Amino acid sequence: KQHELAITTRAEDYPKWYQDVVRFGELAEPAKVVKGCMVIRPHGYAIWEKIQRDLDARFKNTGHRNAYFPLLVPQSFIMKEAEHIEGFAPELAVVTHAGGQELEEPYVIRPTSETIIGHFFAKWIDSHRDLPLKINQWANVMRWELRTRMFLRTTEFLWQEGHTAHATHEEAIEETLQMLHVYGDFAEEVLAVPVTRGIKTASERFAGALETYCIEAWMQDGKALQAGTSHDLGQNFGKAFDVKFQNEAGDLEHVWQTSWGVSTRLIGGLVMTHSDDDGLVLPPRVAPIHAAIIPIFRKAHEKERVMEAAERLKEQLSAIDIAPERARYRDFLEVVIDDRDMRPGAKFYDWERRGVPMRIELGPKDLDKGQVCMKMRVDTPACSGKQFLPEAEFLGSVRQRLLDYQDALLAAAKARRAANTVTLDTWEEFEATFAGDESKFAWCHWDGTAETEAAIKDKTKVTIRCVPLEGQGPAAEPGTCIFSGKPSKQRVLMAKAY
Amino acid sequence: KQHELAITTRAEDYPKWYQDVVRFGELAEPAKVVKGCMVIRPHGYAIWEKIQRDLDARFKNTGHRNAYFPLLVPQSFIMKEAEHIEGFAPELAVVTHAGGQELEEPYVIRPTSETIIGHFFAKWIDSHRDLPLKINQWANVMRWELRTRMFLRTTEFLWQEGHTAHATHEEAIEETLQMLHVYGDFAEEVLAVPVTRGIKTASERFAGALETYCIEAWMQDGKALQAGTSHDLGQNFGKAFDVKFQNEAGDLEHVWQTSWGVSTRLIGGLVMTHSDDDGLVLPPRVAPIHAAIIPIFRKAHEKERVMEAAERLKEQLSAIDIAPERARYRDFLEVVIDDRDMRPGAKFYDWERRGVPMRIELGPKDLDKGQVCMKMRVDTPACSGKQFLPEAEFLGSVRQRLLDYQDALLAAAKARRAANTVTLDTWEEFEATFAGDESKFAWCHWDGTAETEAAIKDKTKVTIRCVPLEGQGPAAEPGTCIFSGKPSKQRVLMAKAY
Ligand SMILES: [Zn+2]
Ligand SMILES: [Zn+2]
Repeated sequence: KQHELAITTRAEDYPKWYQDVVRFGELAEPAKVVKGCMVIRPHGYAIWEKIQRDLDARFKNTGHRNAYFPLLVPQSFIMKEAEHIEGFAPELAVVTHAGGQELEEPYVIRPTSETIIGHFFAKWIDSHRDLPLKINQWANVMRWELRTRMFLRTTEFLWQEGHTAHATHEEAIEETLQMLHVYGDFAEEVLAVPVTRGIKTASERFAGALETYCIEAWMQDGKALQAGTSHDLGQNFGKAFDVKFQNEAGDLEHVWQTSWGVSTRLIGGLVMTHSDDDGLVLPPRVAPIHAAIIPIFRKAHEKERVMEAAERLKEQLSAIDIAPERARYRDFLEVVIDDRDMRPGAKFYDWERRGVPMRIELGPKDLDKGQVCMKMRVDTPACSGKQFLPEAEFLGSVRQRLLDYQDALLAAAKARRAANTVTLDTWEEFEATFAGDESKFAWCHWDGTAETEAAIKDKTKVTIRCVPLEGQGPAAEPGTCIFSGKPSKQRVLMAKAY
Repeated sequence: KQHELAITTRAEDYPKWYQDVVRFGELAEPAKVVKGCMVIRPHGYAIWEKIQRDLDARFKNTGHRNAYFPLLVPQSFIMKEAEHIEGFAPELAVVTHAGGQELEEPYVIRPTSETIIGHFFAKWIDSHRDLPLKINQWANVMRWELRTRMFLRTTEFLWQEGHTAHATHEEAIEETLQMLHVYGDFAEEVLAVPVTRGIKTASERFAGALETYCIEAWMQDGKALQAGTSHDLGQNFGKAFDVKFQNEAGDLEHVWQTSWGVSTRLIGGLVMTHSDDDGLVLPPRVAPIHAAIIPIFRKAHEKERVMEAAERLKEQLSAIDIAPERARYRDFLEVVIDDRDMRPGAKFYDWERRGVPMRIELGPKDLDKGQVCMKMRVDTPACSGKQFLPEAEFLGSVRQRLLDYQDALLAAAKARRAANTVTLDTWEEFEATFAGDESKFAWCHWDGTAETEAAIKDKTKVTIRCVPLEGQGPAAEPGTCIFSGKPSKQRVLMAKAY
């Protein structure tokens, strides 16, 4: 049925376009029967699996080990860290009955696991020899949100949460920054999503953290998407859960902790970074299917010959591994042969909407000439339109072609972001830039006060996305706040946001 | 602190031995603050990850795709399939409040997902062209059990649940059996756990299934562990959730469904199959660490030389991949150098308790001779006690040595099971075999009635583990029921069970 429906264009209705791309790409659909939840369909979940395996390897390569903690958290645990309660209490889902009886103390479904993990850290850590303790958990979490949108904000979502404990604040800060860069590198190298790395203002900080670092991605409607966060928790949870260690001098100290996470939200960012009015566009490193072979034939004897050649080609392609050299996983090309009883044009359209990077047409003429006819989902400077290549040349170059396509998608996303990033110096320019639903990435001076931040947000819905780390924005030079006219130390990144 | 404590022996107290092996091996610990839950610690979770990646590849190789459905299920969904309610209602955990408000309809935390997946299958399936639909989900589930034991039975556990829909009952049965064999092959090839494949009696069937197939493993106390199940659901859920398709003739029919699952329980079975009074024993295909290098030195200049050699050796070993030829993952050897300030003997003891397959001692004498001193965690016919090997010979043979060790563990487990499997023909023999806490695998004739099954269970705690598939037990020959004396078609597997 869906084949008959066109995707809403971005110009027409951007939020509707996003929804169409997700649904027609068969990534996910709203669960409806469970408030604010979605079902992640196979084509969407396969992207999450590819995100997981690459990120997981990066976590292991930086010395982290995975573990699993209970889904349910005693309600009293959430109450132990003052700011944490305030941040999460309104969003909790509560289990009051189990096994046919009312519980003495209710449990909440974890909205995040700092509290329950803090409890176990206290049991496991005695001495400086037990530190650093570097744990990661892949899990589902639940935050009862009012307004939800597939992948970007759902009541239940899948994520990873890193939790580490250290002997010194310096070491904890180093860890926080290391993981921010793991996220930033992953976003760019694997998702082909360019990100700005920076520090959140106090008002946007994680509930219970001293400092929150983030990566911010630019979406095609000009809004920002917070794509990952890394928190310096200081000793806040260490004190709340009494996580102490004996230092080398024999004194007891509270540990310094960090936590950091990314979620299925990344898939929303991926979709909104690359997709176009024809639907989903996926970089090969996270594409569930790399190539679709469309057999072209008219007569029965042609069909047999073409299908045989298609099977042979599929087999050859499936032996090609595009994983990085020393990866912990293999990334053999996933290839489908589309032998459905449909017109080739309808098939092209179908695979385009699923974001498959490479399409291969194979007909009797191609076989006669020993050639392959291929086309990439999106034209790039290196490969535009249909290409007719001798089969051997095609097979020898396909790995590099896919990696080049990956690079080209990143370059294109960077170019779009650059074209929509501005440096603003007057309030008039600011109001014009953010009029109506409009948004851009704007580098502006800010006086550093929560009052100004709140006033700007109130008037324009624009928030401070981050104070950029060195090299992530304009060089830090003093100026005048765009709103208050008071002195500013450096420009910060402002935009509307998801 | 734990280094000082000895593991309880199996002869002394088998359940305590199991608990000690799990805790001293740092696989898991009871959560305590969350009823019946455990924390899976990194060494235990790494085993689960290795289980997942290999099973997942087997699911994909048989045409399944992963997806993700909501954790919460509307309470009314559970009530739609009559037998399903009866089986699961007493064990449900219920969410009654969320986002600060009482919910109109409570949700239950999924005890399994037939119901919510049935709901979506009804939305996705219209035509025979949409079939078969073959989905798998990796997830946490919750069943509020009264008596829990780490890995074997916990209120929350991790598992995978396959859910498929087919156009015919024949095809569904074929799928059910295929997945049973995927489980059986995985248990033997990867966990080195021999299993008996068979069919459950009606009383042990999954709530809502026409037929439940299972793999049963023999534990060292003679009890059976149900290690995996595969269910032919018939049209029960298809009718409850109105999952219909138009067949080729144009008529509407209800789909035929299957579901199948294994869980973190497998880790309990793994532990109880191989471990000994010195603690954990792990087959290399699921060992988080393959080899521990213990540097041996007395003087400072020796230390430097030995540590350099240890690092070099670790690097060479870490480049060796023991994954099967065309695996979807890489399985590079995980090697640790234990440079803690402890006596070598205490280190040996420590790595033994964690089940590390290979220990390597490296001292100045070994370096002088260009040799490696290695020892496997458990003696096998091919490799018993310490081996002194020229370094090149060691490096050239280490992959094969680990794979041989894997095979030897399976052979040893099979031999133990064979020595504890009996064929019984009289009730006196039966009562003697199962006296007190005793158990064995016993092949006995049964008259096929639920009354006899219940009477045997009532008198001896022995249950019918399965009616064996062909080749999985004695040839099917008629006989006389061991309890009632009535006619029996074939022998069935009887044992006490976890
Ligand atoms: Zn304290
Ligand atoms: Zn019906």
